[in-house]
Amino acid sequence: MLEHITVPTLLLDETKCRQNIKMMAEKARRNNIRLRPHFKTHQSTQVGEWFREQGTTGITVSSLTMARYFAQHGWDDILVAIPVNIREIELVNELASQVQLHLVAVNIETVEALAQQLQHPVKLWLKIDTGYRRTGILPHSHEELDHIVHLLEQSDKLHFTGVLAHDGHTYKQTDKEAIRTIHHTTVFLLHLVRDRYKARLPELQVSIGDTPSCSILETINGVDEIRPGNYVFYDLTQQHIGSCSFEQIAVCMACPVIAKHPERNEIIVHGGSVHFSKDSLLELDGSVIFGRVVELSENGWSAPLEGIALVSLSQEHGTVRTSKELFDRYKVGDLMGILPIHSCLTADAMRGYTSLDGKHLEHLSGVPVVG
Amino acid sequence: MLEHITVPTLLLDETKCRQNIKMMAEKARRNNIRLRPHFKTHQSTQVGEWFREQGTTGITVSSLTMARYFAQHGWDDILVAIPVNIREIELVNELASQVQLHLVAVNIETVEALAQQLQHPVKLWLKIDTGYRRTGILPHSHEELDHIVHLLEQSDKLHFTGVLAHDGHTYKQTDKEAIRTIHHTTVFLLHLVRDRYKARLPELQVSIGDTPSCSILETINGVDEIRPGNYVFYDLTQQHIGSCSFEQIAVCMACPVIAKHPERNEIIVHGGSVHFSKDSLLELDGSVIFGRVVELSENGWSAPLEGIALVSLSQEHGTVRTSKELFDRYKVGDLMGILPIHSCLTADAMRGYTSLDGKHLEHLSGVPVVG
Repeated sequence: MLEHITVPTLLLDETKCRQNIKMMAEKARRNNIRLRPHFKTHQSTQVGEWFREQGTTGITVSSLTMARYFAQHGWDDILVAIPVNIREIELVNELASQVQLHLVAVNIETVEALAQQLQHPVKLWLKIDTGYRRTGILPHSHEELDHIVHLLEQSDKLHFTGVLAHDGHTYKQTDKEAIRTIHHTTVFLLHLVRDRYKARLPELQVSIGDTPSCSILETINGVDEIRPGNYVFYDLTQQHIGSCSFEQIAVCMACPVIAKHPERNEIIVHGGSVHFSKDSLLELDGSVIFGRVVELSENGWSAPLEGIALVSLSQEHGTVRTSKELFDRYKVGDLMGILPIHSCLTADAMRGYTSLDGKHLEHLSGVPVVG
Repeated sequence: MLEHITVPTLLLDETKCRQNIKMMAEKARRNNIRLRPHFKTHQSTQVGEWFREQGTTGITVSSLTMARYFAQHGWDDILVAIPVNIREIELVNELASQVQLHLVAVNIETVEALAQQLQHPVKLWLKIDTGYRRTGILPHSHEELDHIVHLLEQSDKLHFTGVLAHDGHTYKQTDKEAIRTIHHTTVFLLHLVRDRYKARLPELQVSIGDTPSCSILETINGVDEIRPGNYVFYDLTQQHIGSCSFEQIAVCMACPVIAKHPERNEIIVHGGSVHFSKDSLLELDGSVIFGRVVELSENGWSAPLEGIALVSLSQEHGTVRTSKELFDRYKVGDLMGILPIHSCLTADAMRGYTSLDGKHLEHLSGVPVVG
């Protein structure tokens, strides 16, 4: 398979990927909670089928465009986990007529606009900001919450379903206790909000979503639903956080070696910011890396090699800095395997995958735009 | 036009873009040098035609895939400005049979492989590392240079055409004198290499390529060819360097406002790292920004507003921090105009453009992959 690769290519190890999918499905079953995996990481109809085989029926996406793609591929229970963009009301109505659509709101204006313009019923979740401070309603904003809930109760199209949070701040941690603390704080705050309306609305649900919490915790209490996504592939960021081992990382770039510079032990690969995207990782020694090098074989790839890393990216070139010993191992025309820092962005940039048996798997970003 | 925009959209101001194209074409004519513009910034057949109208016949690209795209759109004199990836020899031969193909080499191994496997003649440039230290042959590597030139002279397929450099280190400068010094050093070093072979090869040419030098210098001496690319759109990085004014930036993102957080004067837009890519700019006050906000109108956009900037990106969300006064000016559902940090990467991520009169212009990254 490797000998047919001529350009930067994103390899997908189906076995590792299916193990990751199964691991989280089993954890959810064991904890008796619903798993609604986030599909923004893979954005692939083929990978989606591997989730279906593990019992997944409801999914999460991060744009209405992504919701449309998966609706076209047979998914009929879709949560769009970004505050509704009311400029897309036409697509919202189209999707709401076809699938069980779940929307997320964070303010009165959006709920008012939806109440006026929705033509079909949707499930509405309120996003609560439990500490990440990107977006969401603050848990103590009682006046705003009461106002929104009042609007929801009056609407025949908006069915108030629950409260959800995304603990993006766990991605900045490398300590399991810190991640557990964030998780427990979030569950506590979501309960506070839910309990305010529980007497009138006993069916309200609680949903959380980050990959670090869902990976690290074995026992998950107090939530009805989890929405992790990145675990389908994992990446160096998640390994750095402690969410996974290197062995669980299910995607790897294969980049042709195009130049070698012995005077500074640097190797240039075809593979730049248009392939990897530009997330980086700060190493313990203070260096910044854009990927770690592995040995490729027909069966997959090794653990990361020590003393060699992708240290710089321009648009199409990647610079790999290496020990003298590893420098000598590569020659111009070889393929170098490089684990990505952030698999979601690398997959989006690469627009598709090649499985280890040479099959092409699609990514939404490689699918031609339809009117 | 703006009212039809529902999702993150990359606007292209054709008038500004054509002015940029014309400015550089006139500068090249005035200096009596050939302009071979780099098309990696726009990667668009439609934008390419605007260059043709200004007399461009030869172009530069940064991958063989890009060369194939522009060959399919009628360009027949194409320089691929990245060390040849010999795993793509089949595509090299295909292109060499169709167009005047110029290739770049930086080592003996690649020249040997090309000499053996080329089926059609190509023009071969040696890339010299004049200080950027990404890739290229060091100007004092006489033994390596002599060896390569000897191989080239023996080949009937490889026509040694000249020496070229890319001064990527000018992108780290904000001082015009520093950029002029880099430029003059590069020309001096390229002359040293060329002059070593001038007696035997009197036709050898000299080519340089960075947008900062080509923008800042009015008089360009000692080179046969310039290959700038980013100037077609410019961006905040080039404005920061001093290559352009804000008014010359010809692309702008339009992003829907999806949330507002009055307690911290932050506005959330739909527009994240999958739209902008992730290059950032360090401001004089030490803050890091991912874009600057402008006022959109049907005719284009204003200069950047003070006291408001895009300060954080996640996959689909962008966080805009603003003064209280500007915070109040935006409401949920509005469109916000945001100038990109690095137009090449934003265009690649966005996969297409919308002109101010609502036309769609393609980008290679939005064109379905052909086998």
